Amino acid sequence: MSRFFSEKYSALTPYTPGEQPQDMKYIKLNTNESPYPPSSKALSRASEASARMHLYPDPECRTLTEKIAELCGLSFPQVLVTNGSDEILNFAFMAFCDEKHPAYFPDISYGFYSVFAELNGVPYKEIPLCEDFTINLDDYKNLEGTIFVANPNAPTGIALTLSEIEKLILQNPKSVVVIDEAYVDFGTESALSLIDKYDNLLVTQTFSKSRSMAGARLGFGAGNRELIQDLNTIKYSTNPYNINTMTMAAGIGVLEDAEYTEKNCKAVMKARGYTVKELSKLGFSMTDSKANFIFAKHSSVGGEKLYRELKSRGILVRHFNKPRLCEHLRITIGTEEQMQALVNTLSDILEGR
Amino acid sequence: MSRFFSEKYSALTPYTPGEQPQDMKYIKLNTNESPYPPSSKALSRASEASARMHLYPDPECRTLTEKIAELCGLSFPQVLVTNGSDEILNFAFMAFCDEKHPAYFPDISYGFYSVFAELNGVPYKEIPLCEDFTINLDDYKNLEGTIFVANPNAPTGIALTLSEIEKLILQNPKSVVVIDEAYVDFGTESALSLIDKYDNLLVTQTFSKSRSMAGARLGFGAGNRELIQDLNTIKYSTNPYNINTMTMAAGIGVLEDAEYTEKNCKAVMKARGYTVKELSKLGFSMTDSKANFIFAKHSSVGGEKLYRELKSRGILVRHFNKPRLCEHLRITIGTEEQMQALVNTLSDILEGR
Repeated sequence: MSRFFSEKYSALTPYTPGEQPQDMKYIKLNTNESPYPPSSKALSRASEASARMHLYPDPECRTLTEKIAELCGLSFPQVLVTNGSDEILNFAFMAFCDEKHPAYFPDISYGFYSVFAELNGVPYKEIPLCEDFTINLDDYKNLEGTIFVANPNAPTGIALTLSEIEKLILQNPKSVVVIDEAYVDFGTESALSLIDKYDNLLVTQTFSKSRSMAGARLGFGAGNRELIQDLNTIKYSTNPYNINTMTMAAGIGVLEDAEYTEKNCKAVMKARGYTVKELSKLGFSMTDSKANFIFAKHSSVGGEKLYRELKSRGILVRHFNKPRLCEHLRITIGTEEQMQALVNTLSDILEGR
Repeated sequence: MSRFFSEKYSALTPYTPGEQPQDMKYIKLNTNESPYPPSSKALSRASEASARMHLYPDPECRTLTEKIAELCGLSFPQVLVTNGSDEILNFAFMAFCDEKHPAYFPDISYGFYSVFAELNGVPYKEIPLCEDFTINLDDYKNLEGTIFVANPNAPTGIALTLSEIEKLILQNPKSVVVIDEAYVDFGTESALSLIDKYDNLLVTQTFSKSRSMAGARLGFGAGNRELIQDLNTIKYSTNPYNINTMTMAAGIGVLEDAEYTEKNCKAVMKARGYTVKELSKLGFSMTDSKANFIFAKHSSVGGEKLYRELKSRGILVRHFNKPRLCEHLRITIGTEEQMQALVNTLSDILEGR
């Protein structure tokens, strides 16, 4: 720390991203990326657009934003695209939380929420999940602040139904309710359909998972136009050109290739089913994951030991060294071949080979 | 504004980017882009990298950062790459300014400085430039906070010499001195050579101007490793994957193509010389610009009128509707052909054709 670092950040502990080994020698099941390559339409659009790299991108991202809005059944002023969904989440912490309006989120959820709260000097309350990792909606009533719920949740993959989300919104009319739908495309119903009904709902999504674009950094927020206007005020005061030309074009391309995305999501869900079945046979218990990862705990071997054994055998999964999580592994669903390799390797480890 | 928008931003006035017409029908001399297309090496690297778009980018940006560090005569921990130089500037406002450590910058400079200060709730003092738009270094002595100086300055293009920058650093040992070198490649000496000597110097640069990559969003900060560590704490608490895969690769490509960048900078400087000479003949006075733009005022016709007349004839320049600036135009230096068109059009306007 330098002698100049502002005191307000002296206790800030940054988010720790999952390992990103650049040598590519692992079967990488640790950061919930898609195992499928980017859409060819995303690639060709990005390549075409790169020739305009000497000019600033459209700060409004109008074409892409209109396309997203159309697919969501919304209009341009109800959508804001951002540099990954991390950016829209940070904007929401900035815009809708302050000393008088705390942030509320489950004690087990996306690890970045508490970092965003700390970064922005916002008080926050982590509401404990039930023993079985589900959310008890009665814990979220008449809150005055901003509620962040990942649906499905991470790292458990457990989802709330659309009517449960609606109940959450209805019983917190004085709060903005942010539904973080990073993993929605793998079997959860989106809350986008509720936006025209409630002025306190913000839905965030990402192109990093189902759309095979983690490397492009693209996400968006959708909500009431006044909420989006506030978030735009933050954007234009932070980084008006937040989306680069190639990413914007790739985003348009992948949306034109909806069949490809759908096919990949189906394959991931199928491989998830296979993995759950096989891991059960090996003595794992798992939450009912609707995401492109599973959250698994073995009946006798600890999470950290399994993480290390897998890593030494060339498979990276995610282990969280935290109470309630440390006996589990979060395992990204890759291709069927990758999941077979995982199952075989876990089987070897458990047999002590 | 929604009923949820935090009071702390209620008075925030976002930055207004220059017009970015997406239909491309103008001669665009309003946002200081390079008139030259991106380097072919930047394009081929970006295209190659896009195939990995489904994987998260390296959050450390190690290869690119090491390459920048090497070119600057620095090492990896002294450099941080960001999503345009706007991001590193915002990080500096976050990290090194607070209620007790105000921001100081000239009253006429990059318009985003005051927005960043407002956004971060940081007190700031705009120090008036002299009548001739130069900085009086005596106005910057023993300040305790953070000093932001664009060198060359915008929108005047006037540069401080390296020894003047060193004097500024020496006479403010309790302040971080941020030298914003967005336009340094068009004839100003960089302060990068002073980094190993002073622990309170942060130099920021961008790939948007001389390197023809405004659309890719790439900038960096260079300084003492403790300053960079603080800025990394902010980065990893905001958006660890701030640089996308294609941009990172394009940045590596353009640095491998240094001759191309140098050739383009020379062409811009030559076209600047031509434009200054011709505009003088038409009755304009100009500051001594070392940037890829000129700051010009006509002896009898006002800035706004000229801006409008030019726009109606298909040429976009930048006009700032602010005291001390409103009689001027900021005109980006394009190709020689574009500048000839500008000169001819201005000549027609002034002759009342």
